[in-house]
Amino acid sequence: MNSSWVIHFKDGNVGMKLLLGGKGANLAEMTVVGLPVPSGFTVTTDACRAYHASLRLPDGLMDDVKEGIKAIERQKAQCFGDADDPLLVSVRSGSVSSMPGMMDTILNLGLTDITVQGLAKATNNDSFAFDCYRRLIQMFGNVVFGIESIYFEKLLHQLKRELGVKQDQDMTAEGWKQLIPQFKSCIERHARKSFPQDVNEQLKLAIEAVFRSWNNHRAKVYRKINQIPDEQGTAVNIQAMVFGNLGQDCGTGVLFTRNPSTGDKHLFGEYLTNAQGEDVVAGVRTPLPIAELKKEMPQVFEQLVSIAEKLELHYRDMQDIEFTVEKGKLYMLQTRNGKRTAQAALKIGVNLVHEGIVTVEEAIQRVEISHLDQLLHPTIDPQAVLDIVAVGLPASPGAASGQAVFDADTAEQWARSGMKVILVRSETNPEDIHGVLIAEGVLTSRGGMTSHAAVIARGMGKPCVCGCEEISVDVEGKQFFAGNRTVNEGDWISIDGATGRVIVGKVPLKDADMSGELVQMLEWADGMRQLQVFANADSPEDAAKARELGAEGIGLCRTEHMFMSSQRLPIVQEMILADSSEDRQAALDKLLPMQQADFEGIFAAMAGFPVTIRLLDPPLHEFLPNLEELLGRQIRMSVLEIERTAEQEALDRLIRKVRSMHETNPMLGQRGCRLGILFPEIYEMQIEAIFRAVLRCVQKGIRVLPEIMIPLVSHANELRILRELVDEKAEQVLKGEKKNCSYKVGTMIEVPRAALTARQIAQYADFFSFGTNDLTQMTFGYSRDDAEGKFLSHYVDQKLLASNPFQVLDRDGVGQLIELAVDRGRSVKPSLKTGICGEHGGDRESIFFCHEIGLNYVSCSPYRVPLARIAAAQAKLTFGDVGQANKLIVS
Amino acid sequence: MNSSWVIHFKDGNVGMKLLLGGKGANLAEMTVVGLPVPSGFTVTTDACRAYHASLRLPDGLMDDVKEGIKAIERQKAQCFGDADDPLLVSVRSGSVSSMPGMMDTILNLGLTDITVQGLAKATNNDSFAFDCYRRLIQMFGNVVFGIESIYFEKLLHQLKRELGVKQDQDMTAEGWKQLIPQFKSCIERHARKSFPQDVNEQLKLAIEAVFRSWNNHRAKVYRKINQIPDEQGTAVNIQAMVFGNLGQDCGTGVLFTRNPSTGDKHLFGEYLTNAQGEDVVAGVRTPLPIAELKKEMPQVFEQLVSIAEKLELHYRDMQDIEFTVEKGKLYMLQTRNGKRTAQAALKIGVNLVHEGIVTVEEAIQRVEISHLDQLLHPTIDPQAVLDIVAVGLPASPGAASGQAVFDADTAEQWARSGMKVILVRSETNPEDIHGVLIAEGVLTSRGGMTSHAAVIARGMGKPCVCGCEEISVDVEGKQFFAGNRTVNEGDWISIDGATGRVIVGKVPLKDADMSGELVQMLEWADGMRQLQVFANADSPEDAAKARELGAEGIGLCRTEHMFMSSQRLPIVQEMILADSSEDRQAALDKLLPMQQADFEGIFAAMAGFPVTIRLLDPPLHEFLPNLEELLGRQIRMSVLEIERTAEQEALDRLIRKVRSMHETNPMLGQRGCRLGILFPEIYEMQIEAIFRAVLRCVQKGIRVLPEIMIPLVSHANELRILRELVDEKAEQVLKGEKKNCSYKVGTMIEVPRAALTARQIAQYADFFSFGTNDLTQMTFGYSRDDAEGKFLSHYVDQKLLASNPFQVLDRDGVGQLIELAVDRGRSVKPSLKTGICGEHGGDRESIFFCHEIGLNYVSCSPYRVPLARIAAAQAKLTFGDVGQANKLIVS
Repeated sequence: MNSSWVIHFKDGNVGMKLLLGGKGANLAEMTVVGLPVPSGFTVTTDACRAYHASLRLPDGLMDDVKEGIKAIERQKAQCFGDADDPLLVSVRSGSVSSMPGMMDTILNLGLTDITVQGLAKATNNDSFAFDCYRRLIQMFGNVVFGIESIYFEKLLHQLKRELGVKQDQDMTAEGWKQLIPQFKSCIERHARKSFPQDVNEQLKLAIEAVFRSWNNHRAKVYRKINQIPDEQGTAVNIQAMVFGNLGQDCGTGVLFTRNPSTGDKHLFGEYLTNAQGEDVVAGVRTPLPIAELKKEMPQVFEQLVSIAEKLELHYRDMQDIEFTVEKGKLYMLQTRNGKRTAQAALKIGVNLVHEGIVTVEEAIQRVEISHLDQLLHPTIDPQAVLDIVAVGLPASPGAASGQAVFDADTAEQWARSGMKVILVRSETNPEDIHGVLIAEGVLTSRGGMTSHAAVIARGMGKPCVCGCEEISVDVEGKQFFAGNRTVNEGDWISIDGATGRVIVGKVPLKDADMSGELVQMLEWADGMRQLQVFANADSPEDAAKARELGAEGIGLCRTEHMFMSSQRLPIVQEMILADSSEDRQAALDKLLPMQQADFEGIFAAMAGFPVTIRLLDPPLHEFLPNLEELLGRQIRMSVLEIERTAEQEALDRLIRKVRSMHETNPMLGQRGCRLGILFPEIYEMQIEAIFRAVLRCVQKGIRVLPEIMIPLVSHANELRILRELVDEKAEQVLKGEKKNCSYKVGTMIEVPRAALTARQIAQYADFFSFGTNDLTQMTFGYSRDDAEGKFLSHYVDQKLLASNPFQVLDRDGVGQLIELAVDRGRSVKPSLKTGICGEHGGDRESIFFCHEIGLNYVSCSPYRVPLARIAAAQAKLTFGDVGQANKLIVS
Repeated sequence: MNSSWVIHFKDGNVGMKLLLGGKGANLAEMTVVGLPVPSGFTVTTDACRAYHASLRLPDGLMDDVKEGIKAIERQKAQCFGDADDPLLVSVRSGSVSSMPGMMDTILNLGLTDITVQGLAKATNNDSFAFDCYRRLIQMFGNVVFGIESIYFEKLLHQLKRELGVKQDQDMTAEGWKQLIPQFKSCIERHARKSFPQDVNEQLKLAIEAVFRSWNNHRAKVYRKINQIPDEQGTAVNIQAMVFGNLGQDCGTGVLFTRNPSTGDKHLFGEYLTNAQGEDVVAGVRTPLPIAELKKEMPQVFEQLVSIAEKLELHYRDMQDIEFTVEKGKLYMLQTRNGKRTAQAALKIGVNLVHEGIVTVEEAIQRVEISHLDQLLHPTIDPQAVLDIVAVGLPASPGAASGQAVFDADTAEQWARSGMKVILVRSETNPEDIHGVLIAEGVLTSRGGMTSHAAVIARGMGKPCVCGCEEISVDVEGKQFFAGNRTVNEGDWISIDGATGRVIVGKVPLKDADMSGELVQMLEWADGMRQLQVFANADSPEDAAKARELGAEGIGLCRTEHMFMSSQRLPIVQEMILADSSEDRQAALDKLLPMQQADFEGIFAAMAGFPVTIRLLDPPLHEFLPNLEELLGRQIRMSVLEIERTAEQEALDRLIRKVRSMHETNPMLGQRGCRLGILFPEIYEMQIEAIFRAVLRCVQKGIRVLPEIMIPLVSHANELRILRELVDEKAEQVLKGEKKNCSYKVGTMIEVPRAALTARQIAQYADFFSFGTNDLTQMTFGYSRDDAEGKFLSHYVDQKLLASNPFQVLDRDGVGQLIELAVDRGRSVKPSLKTGICGEHGGDRESIFFCHEIGLNYVSCSPYRVPLARIAAAQAKLTFGDVGQANKLIVS
């Protein structure tokens, strides 16, 4: 049987997944290696694609299917549609990527008013035969005609009440016979069609229905979430039925070759005697642990153990196996690589290496980066009973409990007095940072996964639930509402940033720990990878955490976060609002020792490793009070008071200043190095603080490798001028010690023009750090703040864009600029150090890209460092040596 | 004399301008062709650069100078410093680019207490000799020692009073002798130095002083305005003195070979007998018309006429000549190409061609594009007496008179009733457009040359003065203040957008006319150029104007301007604020016939030429009321009223809506094709209106070439989807007529990613129109609104940037993207039509760039079309065939 639309199990193998789907390929593989698999064949995914292209089954398909059925008939010595001993088949979907439960299945196909009699005779079991028939009619009605199961269930329920029957298994054959005409007319009523009595017609309709189910709503949603391409399609597996419900020498079960929760090496699974697979799922009867099978069917159990071992060795991974025992004979219905928890995955990986089953490289390649996140943050104890009141977006993983506060100042005040707080806001803005800094976690009712709150929280490795539209926050009233619940300031709440859950009350947390297996994997990965992994860290605490998680330096230290604490902000505002340069200098003089102390702490925590410090970047008005609020206050004053007061005049002055600093598009305004050039005294202060800290550390014998980064350069001249400023200050502050302290000066490449003119810029740069967040904004012309809530999600939904370019680096556009900048920069300065910072630094695909184009490092938030280390190793294993990969074909 | 620092006039020529400066090169040229030039030599610009590098005269320079002096001595048979018949020299600056009056000159150098006696004897004219001496001391004190002339003038004035002398020329030798010691001690008092009695010392100090004057304040400012490179430096011309003030057979004068105001072909100039050059300038005596010289000194006049003819033929251009007659002998002191008005330049150019002196190509190459602007707009009658009350930035050329109004609605109302108005605002925003549309001109107190008001006004060819900080606008009080003057609503004012003048009262205007010479030049240019020239036009009137000025199509028709009139804006707001899609459709249905009528008018005006229509581009909130104002109203209501009214509730709703549409960075937000994809009904309406208009025109027999342009594309998929929408609508509306109406669909390339992925985008595009305004914003990361008032002007002042990239296209960055997009786009679709729109389309340098990289067209505001036609011809003459120029070496 070598037709184009159908492949028999014996002619396939596990390598044919794209054509046969996962289930089909594994059934073929098991058949070929000689395991007991019920005879069958697979209708290919090609057929599915052909079906969706023309919305009808392709020519010749049903002929091929009939040939396939004949082969089963020969093997089973039964006939499909036979009145005496009919062949029954299952029709199951089986997609390329695992999509459990998303698509449809029909069992017992081949039963009609006539063949059911034959089945009853052949099995000598009327009740079984008519139960099978009613199940077929129900499944067929549901899958083929789209009738909701509830209509059938109601009829069954009604009949059971009439007959006084409690459990399905207590129903007599007579009962089932009575139900069958009701089920048939249910189909006629709802679908205005009859249940077909022609078995080939049944088969044809069933195949079409499975193909159609590829595009049912839940399957589409699942594919979107799991990034499975729509073009893959599903195969259909048609297989002789075996029955686990033909008596006490029958049964069905599920088996994992290792424990999928812990990764421990022992068989793990459950079974039921005299049952079909759905009975296990339905939960009507409680299945028994697999170990019990040893007692009930010792031979079967022994065979199963041996098959499990064989399959694990054959597939070289933990297997998830489905089996059925019919009349004492074991049949394998499915095997696949088993799903497992992140922790189990690591343990299994390490053990498989130790058992000599897989190589270290394979173990690394198999690590699912996206799963690691949950291992590195505290989680809610899975045993805890939770009072969940709302679910928002899982914006930054980890769980936290604290007392609700509704503004950043209170958050800071309470936290300083030793309380744990959760900051609750409608949305956050940069002025809230000191609150975010000190809170256990953040909850907002507005804003997406990449809103300000989310980005900041992820950067700090702090739990965050955002865009939680089920709650409504009343900041003035210091409370929030969730349904009919009210949470007041001071009430305990908990959030789970990995799932988005919002919980009233305190919950028990489980601390994250670096398991021995994770440490082992990281060690292996470090031995392979070529990309260095740095962390983004803005404080000595973050720096220490980053080192603990294996960061080899700081790739981005954002000095503006140091300006945000409540003691410093007023001084920063003084500095910005100063009318004279003397006043400005006075404020800067106060800030200098504070920044110096920060840098000393960070240098000490990172002793011997590079620390990349970005000079002030955001527009100054981000540090000023909100204009709208000020205007409101002004109007209120002017409406209520008759005489102008001094307070009013001060307010007017402040408003004028704030207004004068207002910008239409602040992202593209007066920020970054533009500030440094317009107000050199600010950068001078920062540079002086850095070198004073360097000097102090050097004198203490700490090895310091400072790298000063100039942000938002768009023209080489900007870097030239500011580099001169750095060199001058270094000379001034370090004096004789300069020879003992080598520093670097470089720039963020985050403006398209900087990438395009990399040749000129590289002349003045020791390193390029690609600020992929801003570079993405400007290359696409997307304001992240505005895009994500609005058109961007629509674009991703409608597949205009393959993914959100702020999450996955856009290779075609942004990536092209990065590659071009690296090539041009190095052509001028071969020693140029290159890397990326920003959130892409912690994304697997983006890390792969960085490896491919030969960057030196990636920098990401401390909690993503372990995952970046493994991704970097995977990139090396996938693409070979850094820069040896085929170059992107630029578009 | 072939040393390195000094070149004698007889060894130079006009080709050596870079080394000798303009004046030196021309003196050399005249010497070489045998004209009577006083003997002399030039200290080269190399010496000047060497001086500025080390801040002292280079080694060997003074030796070379002394050699040069010797050559003059030989020729004049006089000796420098000789006690009996001393050689006197002038020391004059002479830069490469003409910088009239910007640098310093010293005459009569070589006089000392001793040599002045010799001069008196040799000329037999005591009064002349001592007058010369005191002039030297004064000039020397001023130029070398930096003493302000006023101190010397005061002493002279005092002495004249004491002696009862009215005019300088009435002063006796005794008087001058009395003044000289006073002048000397003036120098000693102010500079603590003595006037040197060593003539070589005089010479050395004078040369240094001229070199120094290269960097005096006014010279630097002049260079900046005229974009003259600082590295050029000035030469110094040292030349034997000739005296026009030795008696009635002496004189001095200035001569133009043609009339510099009108271009008419007749000698034009003035002279004074018995005078030195400065006397002409000082205006103490009134010079005589040059024709008079024919009577007074017929031979000299005849010689002058013949020299003038010879020089014009030699230089092949109108000459500006300085001459002196000493004792009946004519000396040429300078010749250069004469400055002229724009009108004269054209007439001279055309005449020189007709006279066979220059070729058509040369005439075209000589047209100064920047001068043409004034020819195409109305101007204030130069004879008029003006009450100028302030001067602002000359933001959009042309002059206008009208009654002052302070808001757009009043502007529209008054204008509709037949009045002429000038719209006065602190600054304008898009909501004011209907006012700008209908006003004679616009005056603002804030905002730079590229502020919103300026850009819009230039686009419409409407006079605009902006950033006029001398006036303060009180919009509420409907008045503005300028010094102690108050202008109320309804008062007549006038503005001159070419000079920035603000005038109280109505002034007589001179209409622009396309002179015969301009028409001739344009005809010649059209015969040469390869770039097509289109216009940006948004209305039938603009389209007609554009045709009149020679536009070969519309390159940019901005449909949003059609939404701005006061009848339409409420409907547009209805559309935006609609709560249901039915309400939105209802509003759109009202807009459709209006847009259709606009398009019909434009198509008719452009019959036979392409019309590129850009679908809606700006963010929708630009059409909504100002949030700040609404909030103010809300607070006022809530403070004053006790019960909530329906009005209050409506306001709350409106605020919620406006707030929900607020964007942090609207430039990068929900606009352009993103709107078209999110709210397809808006684009559908626009496309339908276009094709209905097309159909109507086709039925009337008008040839229509519509080109529909999709704005802000950053991914090929956006264009793919919207192109499908256009094709669908075309099919629907045109039906059978589709074959008679070919249309194009293309995109603006204004997002860096679009340029980078041009290959993909070109698949769906018939044309690329580079939106260089936005492309510049995103490539640089500059928000134009925020940059120009703030850091950008600082950047240009500090030479961080060579020029404002919004005025002159940035070749290195933005240009690189454009070139790359053109190459990649054409590699996929060789027929791809390419051009630029935006303000760069009317800038000469940018037009040159467009020609070089082989674009098909430029599009600019109608009033810049003629100038673009000539610039395009110049580009062809400069670079040869389109696309044949050497490719940019991308950086």
